[in-house]
Amino acid sequence: MSNFADRLIAAIRDKGNPCVVGLDPRVESMPDFITAELARSDDPNALAAAIAGFHEHVIGAIADLVPAVKLQAAFYEQYGVPGMCALAETIALARSAGLLVVVDAKRNDVDSTARAYASAFLGETGVHGRPPAGFDCDCITVSPFLGRDSLMPFVTACAEHGKGIFVLVKTSNPGSADIQDQLVEGRETVSARLARMVDELGGALVGHERYSSVGAVVGATFPQQAQELRRLMPAAIVLVPGYGAQGGSADGAAASFNEDGLGAVVNASRSITYAYGESGVSPGELAERVRRSATAMIEDVNGAIARRAAG
Amino acid sequence: MSNFADRLIAAIRDKGNPCVVGLDPRVESMPDFITAELARSDDPNALAAAIAGFHEHVIGAIADLVPAVKLQAAFYEQYGVPGMCALAETIALARSAGLLVVVDAKRNDVDSTARAYASAFLGETGVHGRPPAGFDCDCITVSPFLGRDSLMPFVTACAEHGKGIFVLVKTSNPGSADIQDQLVEGRETVSARLARMVDELGGALVGHERYSSVGAVVGATFPQQAQELRRLMPAAIVLVPGYGAQGGSADGAAASFNEDGLGAVVNASRSITYAYGESGVSPGELAERVRRSATAMIEDVNGAIARRAAG
Repeated sequence: MSNFADRLIAAIRDKGNPCVVGLDPRVESMPDFITAELARSDDPNALAAAIAGFHEHVIGAIADLVPAVKLQAAFYEQYGVPGMCALAETIALARSAGLLVVVDAKRNDVDSTARAYASAFLGETGVHGRPPAGFDCDCITVSPFLGRDSLMPFVTACAEHGKGIFVLVKTSNPGSADIQDQLVEGRETVSARLARMVDELGGALVGHERYSSVGAVVGATFPQQAQELRRLMPAAIVLVPGYGAQGGSADGAAASFNEDGLGAVVNASRSITYAYGESGVSPGELAERVRRSATAMIEDVNGAIARRAAG
Repeated sequence: MSNFADRLIAAIRDKGNPCVVGLDPRVESMPDFITAELARSDDPNALAAAIAGFHEHVIGAIADLVPAVKLQAAFYEQYGVPGMCALAETIALARSAGLLVVVDAKRNDVDSTARAYASAFLGETGVHGRPPAGFDCDCITVSPFLGRDSLMPFVTACAEHGKGIFVLVKTSNPGSADIQDQLVEGRETVSARLARMVDELGGALVGHERYSSVGAVVGATFPQQAQELRRLMPAAIVLVPGYGAQGGSADGAAASFNEDGLGAVVNASRSITYAYGESGVSPGELAERVRRSATAMIEDVNGAIARRAAG
């Protein structure tokens, strides 16, 4: 089973950028050619089909441009069972288009329950000889609030199945200060302590490219902290949310990269997927505009990484 | 819309105990009369039907005994889409049996994503005039790791829809020490700071019974801390996990109650639901054994609460 970090670095090199497009269903923002069907139909499968159909268009537009997509679990879960069907279908569509799939689930729990979450997304759950169940993606985000022992089942699943995790270390919202910025024993912040934990947990999962399958989430909105955290976990790949609609800049995101120009991926969701303007767009116009937004993001992020390396 | 805390206190008074039975699907542990069907069938709906069917037996056995059930989201999610169908069906079965339903999801995220999780479980998601989607339960557990602003969408949803949340304050696992026991500014633990946050956030949602719909999770495994945390959030209803299979005692759980004998609910899952012994049990034997385990727990917990009040 090949190392997740190696697969991600290979995809970043292949596509020439570290950008991740978020596929977060907001049905009320989807174009008419998707939602018209939905308003007409009583079929309970129509909602799942509409969401997956929209994502099929977006994936078609960006599959040759970026290394990965990120699916925010909450936006699927808000649509109940049809939403979870759409999550499974979107994962399958993205993987078959050659994209790596991050599910941004921020899951965690204690012992056997953490193992169940790891099985749900990174492993598989055998049931009496039937095909294994679960949402089979490449990596998920996990919360460290319950401590190191709660992360271990995920690390084990990563080792067994060639998958990855991104541990929340410093989130992009103002309220992240409430717990994550608190100074603890040793006069370090909770985030710094977590960065050291990520570095330690990831040691056994470092691949040929010298990056680990145990990564971290560090928001683009706090670049100074991002630089400090980067130093504490040199082998971690950092997933950077908060670029675009959440107000983080490409230069803010660049703070999470190493001097080799690698070590992070930058996500944008709404600003790519729903940037097509009026709801009356045709499928061709949707694809063109999503592609144009993604291309602009790639240039912006690659430019910031180059400036950081130069200066 | 009636206050969730009032509804929960009324149910506790009605049933005469604060015990919550966990409905966590572990298909490999279910009796033969449930799984025999499953092994024979290729129908993708058979897995969801087996899980919901098992829970229908358990709910039938305990619906007149306890005020509420707790569904651990991870154990459903591990079975993929069929698991999430079973989650929706189990919620509906329990509510129609008159039980309050807690989904132990430990969800959280930033701004619009937190709102999506709140819609998923506590509110509803409108889609072009179709019936609202989501998993409509009475309350969920949420993680506070992202800070106060990430909890606000859940508090708002509780106020709008008469629902409740239990915020993780001190979890039952040993690793909870890693972050939750750290001393921060003011020489208080992270857990103590969170207990004060729960108290403050819950102020606007206190019902007639003087308890709030913003509750807390405090494990049964740390009774001394539980007593201190109890004092910091007098109006919070505490959800106490860790009793039974996780090693917490009834006396440990009793530390989270107030002197009025109220203020907490105690959960047990495996030790009730899967305590029926050999896999060849009949439906009648399953019901009888589940009922016997639940009755033993009720006596144990009520005894510990009485001892605490007396002493």
